[in-house]
Amino acid sequence: MEIKSYLNKQRELVERAFDSYIPAAEGVFRTHIEALRYSLFAGGKRVRPILCLAAASAVGSDTVAESDLLPIACALECIHTYSLIHDDLPAMDNDELRRGKPTNHILYGEAGAILAGDGLLTWAFDLLSDTTYGNLNPEKRLRIIHVIARAAGSLGMVGGQALDIAHENTTYPFETLQTIHRSKTGALITASVLAGGIGAGADARQLDALKRYGDQIGLAFQIVDDLLNATGTTEQLGKAAGSDAELGKATYPAYFGVEETRVRALAAVEKATTALTEFDNKAEPLRLLADYVYTRSH
Amino acid sequence: MEIKSYLNKQRELVERAFDSYIPAAEGVFRTHIEALRYSLFAGGKRVRPILCLAAASAVGSDTVAESDLLPIACALECIHTYSLIHDDLPAMDNDELRRGKPTNHILYGEAGAILAGDGLLTWAFDLLSDTTYGNLNPEKRLRIIHVIARAAGSLGMVGGQALDIAHENTTYPFETLQTIHRSKTGALITASVLAGGIGAGADARQLDALKRYGDQIGLAFQIVDDLLNATGTTEQLGKAAGSDAELGKATYPAYFGVEETRVRALAAVEKATTALTEFDNKAEPLRLLADYVYTRSH
Repeated sequence: MEIKSYLNKQRELVERAFDSYIPAAEGVFRTHIEALRYSLFAGGKRVRPILCLAAASAVGSDTVAESDLLPIACALECIHTYSLIHDDLPAMDNDELRRGKPTNHILYGEAGAILAGDGLLTWAFDLLSDTTYGNLNPEKRLRIIHVIARAAGSLGMVGGQALDIAHENTTYPFETLQTIHRSKTGALITASVLAGGIGAGADARQLDALKRYGDQIGLAFQIVDDLLNATGTTEQLGKAAGSDAELGKATYPAYFGVEETRVRALAAVEKATTALTEFDNKAEPLRLLADYVYTRSH
Repeated sequence: MEIKSYLNKQRELVERAFDSYIPAAEGVFRTHIEALRYSLFAGGKRVRPILCLAAASAVGSDTVAESDLLPIACALECIHTYSLIHDDLPAMDNDELRRGKPTNHILYGEAGAILAGDGLLTWAFDLLSDTTYGNLNPEKRLRIIHVIARAAGSLGMVGGQALDIAHENTTYPFETLQTIHRSKTGALITASVLAGGIGAGADARQLDALKRYGDQIGLAFQIVDDLLNATGTTEQLGKAAGSDAELGKATYPAYFGVEETRVRALAAVEKATTALTEFDNKAEPLRLLADYVYTRSH
């Protein structure tokens, strides 16, 4: 299996599903829906949905199809996209460019962007609880909702963002950076993998392995993001290069330098792969995804 | 039954439950949790939780206790509170006072307030999907999550707020005001009543009656809010009086004058009460709540 074509195929699958799940930009709420669709279709890599689907495949199941997991996968991307919209706001990171395009508030104003984010976050839970989509039993669906809500909320992603903002332009120990990474980025990535596993009926042992994989992939992902922010150009990134340093944010390269940071990214990827020994060749997509995260850093 | 003591009793019940459901403001996310707790315990009337519990009582059930509905009731208040925090932001209504206290962003900054809102919204779904709280079966819980998410999101409350903001300082037909009211305020109130009904095992006929009650109560509630904003003092309101007119917002009194607006509020309350003929004296709290909404206007 070739990673690029796999990613393209999965991304198209997710985007087609999205288009059918998210209301059309028409009727009385037209402008608001247009605003949330703008960010949703602004060219994301769809990493979280793809991880969710890949985890489900790894577990394998005769009764659960990929289409049953698609609403879950798309809900994860709604949550990720809302977090980007809110993070980009003037009151937060004040970014004007995201994936090479104007950020949501540049086009729809601050109020419009706050509400687009609120709408996407709420839509995620609408989708997760919509029994007309996908064929998962209520118990599984409820467990998935809880895992995702916990990871996305005040003890996870939202709490991590609050911590990140609070620590701008301060010096702090490496442990705090780890806490910020784990909560702000890691939690939702791990939840994406777990959601796929739960949906496909993983047992406790498999879920434990998926959690270890998710934690390490999330870590690798964040380290590589830090690296790219430090070494990439604005053109490569689609957003302002060096913005972390400018905002006074601590990053892996700031602590360890570029070379040691690469070594740490590779170590996380290797641990992620090791966690998968549990699974047979149906986990090949998860293995390729781990490698892909690291190769992004070059 | 006396409405004041009933409301006090229910409010205390809800607030005690809250305190046990919401994490303590300690540990690494201390400041963020403190920010969301601040708004959550800033003296709300707890109308939505109380309506949810009253609707469940009206249906009556031998197998579902009030304590089973409490997490649902509290989740509704989390969503309501988040919407107030975001509505008060400088980019939205720019209010500095709410219930006689500084608004969230005055104390915790804009970024802190946006994240407190995001955290509360997400916590609502954490609570709704947490099977360690309350004894509702997964099917009921899932239906409740979906009803609430739909009402709170882009086709309900969030969409209504977007519409409200977009129409500031414009003139528009009365039908648009109705759409704004129904989506921005009405939808979540109706969902509160329906959630209680679903939790208590209401049949389709009862749910239909509860929906009609909720729609009319929501309408009455909004009309009375408009009245109070136009006629109350800042001290009575706990927020800036006349702020609707200042923001160029259309209101019932602006269309119909104060007297005709009172007549319309009363008509809505009567329709709400009529919808309850279906139910026996276990619906007494819902009847009293309808009267209470109207008497607030004097």
